[in-house]
Amino acid sequence: MSSHSREAVAEYIYTLTCTDRPGLVAAVSGNIFDLGGNILEAAQFNDQTTHKFFMRIHFASALKTDEITQALANLGRKYAMDWQIRATDDRLRVLLLVSRLDHCLADLLYRSSIGELPMNVVGVVSNHPRESIKASVPSSVPFYHFPVTSKTKTSQEELIKGLIDSLNVDLVVLARYMQILSNEFARSLSGRCINIHHAFLPSFKGAKPYHQAFERGVKIIGATAHYVTSDLDEGPIIVQDVEHITHADSPEDLVRKGRDIEQRVLARAVSYHLQARVLMNGLKTVVFRD
Amino acid sequence: MSSHSREAVAEYIYTLTCTDRPGLVAAVSGNIFDLGGNILEAAQFNDQTTHKFFMRIHFASALKTDEITQALANLGRKYAMDWQIRATDDRLRVLLLVSRLDHCLADLLYRSSIGELPMNVVGVVSNHPRESIKASVPSSVPFYHFPVTSKTKTSQEELIKGLIDSLNVDLVVLARYMQILSNEFARSLSGRCINIHHAFLPSFKGAKPYHQAFERGVKIIGATAHYVTSDLDEGPIIVQDVEHITHADSPEDLVRKGRDIEQRVLARAVSYHLQARVLMNGLKTVVFRD
Amino acid sequence: MSSHSREAVAEYIYTLTCTDRPGLVAAVSGNIFDLGGNILEAAQFNDQTTHKFFMRIHFASALKTDEITQALANLGRKYAMDWQIRATDDRLRVLLLVSRLDHCLADLLYRSSIGELPMNVVGVVSNHPRESIKASVPSSVPFYHFPVTSKTKTSQEELIKGLIDSLNVDLVVLARYMQILSNEFARSLSGRCINIHHAFLPSFKGAKPYHQAFERGVKIIGATAHYVTSDLDEGPIIVQDVEHITHADSPEDLVRKGRDIEQRVLARAVSYHLQARVLMNGLKTVVFRD
Amino acid sequence: MSSHSREAVAEYIYTLTCTDRPGLVAAVSGNIFDLGGNILEAAQFNDQTTHKFFMRIHFASALKTDEITQALANLGRKYAMDWQIRATDDRLRVLLLVSRLDHCLADLLYRSSIGELPMNVVGVVSNHPRESIKASVPSSVPFYHFPVTSKTKTSQEELIKGLIDSLNVDLVVLARYMQILSNEFARSLSGRCINIHHAFLPSFKGAKPYHQAFERGVKIIGATAHYVTSDLDEGPIIVQDVEHITHADSPEDLVRKGRDIEQRVLARAVSYHLQARVLMNGLKTVVFRD
Repeated sequence: MSSHSREAVAEYIYTLTCTDRPGLVAAVSGNIFDLGGNILEAAQFNDQTTHKFFMRIHFASALKTDEITQALANLGRKYAMDWQIRATDDRLRVLLLVSRLDHCLADLLYRSSIGELPMNVVGVVSNHPRESIKASVPSSVPFYHFPVTSKTKTSQEELIKGLIDSLNVDLVVLARYMQILSNEFARSLSGRCINIHHAFLPSFKGAKPYHQAFERGVKIIGATAHYVTSDLDEGPIIVQDVEHITHADSPEDLVRKGRDIEQRVLARAVSYHLQARVLMNGLKTVVFRD
Repeated sequence: MSSHSREAVAEYIYTLTCTDRPGLVAAVSGNIFDLGGNILEAAQFNDQTTHKFFMRIHFASALKTDEITQALANLGRKYAMDWQIRATDDRLRVLLLVSRLDHCLADLLYRSSIGELPMNVVGVVSNHPRESIKASVPSSVPFYHFPVTSKTKTSQEELIKGLIDSLNVDLVVLARYMQILSNEFARSLSGRCINIHHAFLPSFKGAKPYHQAFERGVKIIGATAHYVTSDLDEGPIIVQDVEHITHADSPEDLVRKGRDIEQRVLARAVSYHLQARVLMNGLKTVVFRD
Repeated sequence: MSSHSREAVAEYIYTLTCTDRPGLVAAVSGNIFDLGGNILEAAQFNDQTTHKFFMRIHFASALKTDEITQALANLGRKYAMDWQIRATDDRLRVLLLVSRLDHCLADLLYRSSIGELPMNVVGVVSNHPRESIKASVPSSVPFYHFPVTSKTKTSQEELIKGLIDSLNVDLVVLARYMQILSNEFARSLSGRCINIHHAFLPSFKGAKPYHQAFERGVKIIGATAHYVTSDLDEGPIIVQDVEHITHADSPEDLVRKGRDIEQRVLARAVSYHLQARVLMNGLKTVVFRD
Repeated sequence: MSSHSREAVAEYIYTLTCTDRPGLVAAVSGNIFDLGGNILEAAQFNDQTTHKFFMRIHFASALKTDEITQALANLGRKYAMDWQIRATDDRLRVLLLVSRLDHCLADLLYRSSIGELPMNVVGVVSNHPRESIKASVPSSVPFYHFPVTSKTKTSQEELIKGLIDSLNVDLVVLARYMQILSNEFARSLSGRCINIHHAFLPSFKGAKPYHQAFERGVKIIGATAHYVTSDLDEGPIIVQDVEHITHADSPEDLVRKGRDIEQRVLARAVSYHLQARVLMNGLKTVVFRD
């Protein structure tokens, strides 16, 4: 009922970035108040180095979404803000890319299935056939097998791009997808593609990082979830975590121990992104942790 | 010069607690703006369980302190706030209590000496004589040896209370002070006395927690910094940390490994308190981490 | 071919416990050498408190298994050892018990499917029907729905006991199985039943530990994998791990964050047990970590 | 009494490295038994990649030290071992080098004063004058102020080398000594000089690593204790540790948070070295943790 929906209370996540100046919080929170908003959670960051201001507000309001959007657009113009608003009920549409190692895929799908990651998985893409995947992909999620060779790389990427467009994908997750994206493809996904690198960046960029770590004799290994940019392994870092290892760990042990780190790092980064907890700050991120 | 000081920009930490309701952030930030305040850092917490609101704002303003205080007092009355303001230049006056094990004392004094903990250590009290202390106590810091027996407990506490009053002590730190405070003394220090307990509370309350941990065969030990209340080991927890141990660790190993945990947990809790990052929420704390 | 199998090199895990005395390592390693054994990994622990000796040796030998067993039996008699030997190719037969929350089950099954946990899952038992389980149980693994009420508790346990016997179960894993085992059942599973408790024991025993943790205002939550004994939540601890939390975490957040800890703690404990890395030391464990 | 001391039980740490082969443990432990040795702690590592064998044995024996040494020398020749033995009562003679930041120095001196680090600090060398040092250097420890400029680098190193020789220094610790050693000096200290690098190597080599970490936007910072080699920041790693940071941490915050990591990482590495828990394995280390 339209009369009902007009009065129903919905929850929103509102994020904004602009040049810092006195009065900003007052202006923003005043606006939320005028919109009948009840703030449930708020966090802000004043970057003393770049003089940029970042804010994330989770609020409830009974006003119609377009009225809210209208008011925030006016505010955004006044302060030259980059801003976004999202109803918490609107689930992002997510495409998962995977190669042969599917532990991150299995983990993301399970977390999705129990509602921990509130997202719509609209498809799984792999350069390997479905039978090579051990993770349980729900029958409702289409699986796309797009094999790739060095010769077919461009056309294979075209297939993925086509999917992203036709499925209205909001977020692409490279869940141990072991193909390097072309610069142009990477650029086109700016801010909406998360990769998991199986090392503590900036250590051990590139291929076989666990073997690099073994050779160097480090005592800690890690994993890094970051937004994909055309500059490989240099994208803005979202989440990192590590574990202690010993001299007794073989490269295979590192691969095994690393799986746990990779899973939780990627899941956390995806979760933060889904909740709009990650804001871009140049080549870095602002992450309002839960 | 008074004309100069009137125009000089000073920095303040403003903390407040009140019942949550829409418009609070707008009211508070509007007030800061009216006071010519430039927000450097702000954090808030809306407790969905108790419907209480907590906020900490670090701001700079060229207004005189009493003008600021006046305005915030008015706001505080309007919203029935518990609130406090402190100029960041005003250092808290801290009294350190210690018994025989002085690693936490040594650590706090060193951090104070290099400016990491911006506090005025106005004295060190011990029930052991100065020569039993290995930490380097600066010659500028008076050392009070107040021996205690079960018979002299009351009179010894009176001596400490006398010091707290005469030295205008803002914060008492029990840096491995192994005497149990009387209920009345503990109550009188409510919210301004931090203790380090050498276990991960609520595990292993009371005496010899590392030996308890050894007997139980736990695989992790910890330490807990908390505000002192008359209910021993039940005070609001500020900071906890832990380390992994193994079957090969003897009770003495646990004591040794525990020292590191105790030091950093207590130092962090004191640092948070000095920066007014800890707000009381009933028997729990809200800690706005740096 | 029998002639081939006689000459083939097999790998073994040999564990032993006895009263400590000089010459033990020489005797044990001398025996391994006499058996043509090549030590791949060895660890030992001399308990200075109880004067007990613990050792685990991973070795390769071309001798026949019964010749090895015979020699170690002689040695074991001489030194009054508790000892075990297991060919690394012999997989333990594991029964998984679960209630409504199946994240640990899903995790264990996935790790089994990729070979990380080298075990034969011979069945999954739940007091909830199969359709309530979101984890993907392979079609090769029988699922047993054994509902239970306070009145049918004894008979339901009989069903489980029957399975354990008929399936030759080596290890029972309570993967968030929310029924309290009867004393007699618990005792019968001594040393071959691992439970995951969703708290950092000995804190927060019993029901709803995350809610207890929320009420107490701790800053760290944890999980504990332990052998089941008739004394609830007091069994020998195998693995513990923790994560930092904040005032902003609701009980539901703790449940969510706890899932990750539970999964990795239980998986690690099961992995250690499968590799015979856990030896009993009274009410405690000796864990030779990998 | 000499007759008494001859019979007194002393404790020893015996470490050895050689090519792996069957029977080694039996030979070594048999020898210890023949020497009347009672093993208190033992650990070994069979490197499956390089086929090298590493062992550390802590044992007690009433035999005279030279009898023990004689027997182990024979064994060492037979198996072409690199080996060392040290009575636990023999304290290493340690020289500490420091520049302006003295938190690691203060920490090491305090741990030494309470007996946690069983070493003889035979001197402190700094390129800064004593009055710039806030750490409390005991009056019994000579302080050497050896200023250095790019022109006097060689002669200043000669002064340090002279001290190392005249004081019979066993271990040099670079406790935030911010001068790069010449290749020749570094080489001469091979295996007996530990440096603390204030980053998680191999990330952020060279100068100002915390500023590099800030610029890159990493979410974790760390510190690395390693043996010094002529190849700067590439020496064998002994201990590493890390802490989580956030977008809100300024470079100064990282420096502050890093101090804690540096202190505990360096102290742990020194402690391991003092207990002969670190064995060289090419460009890597084998660390038998306590």
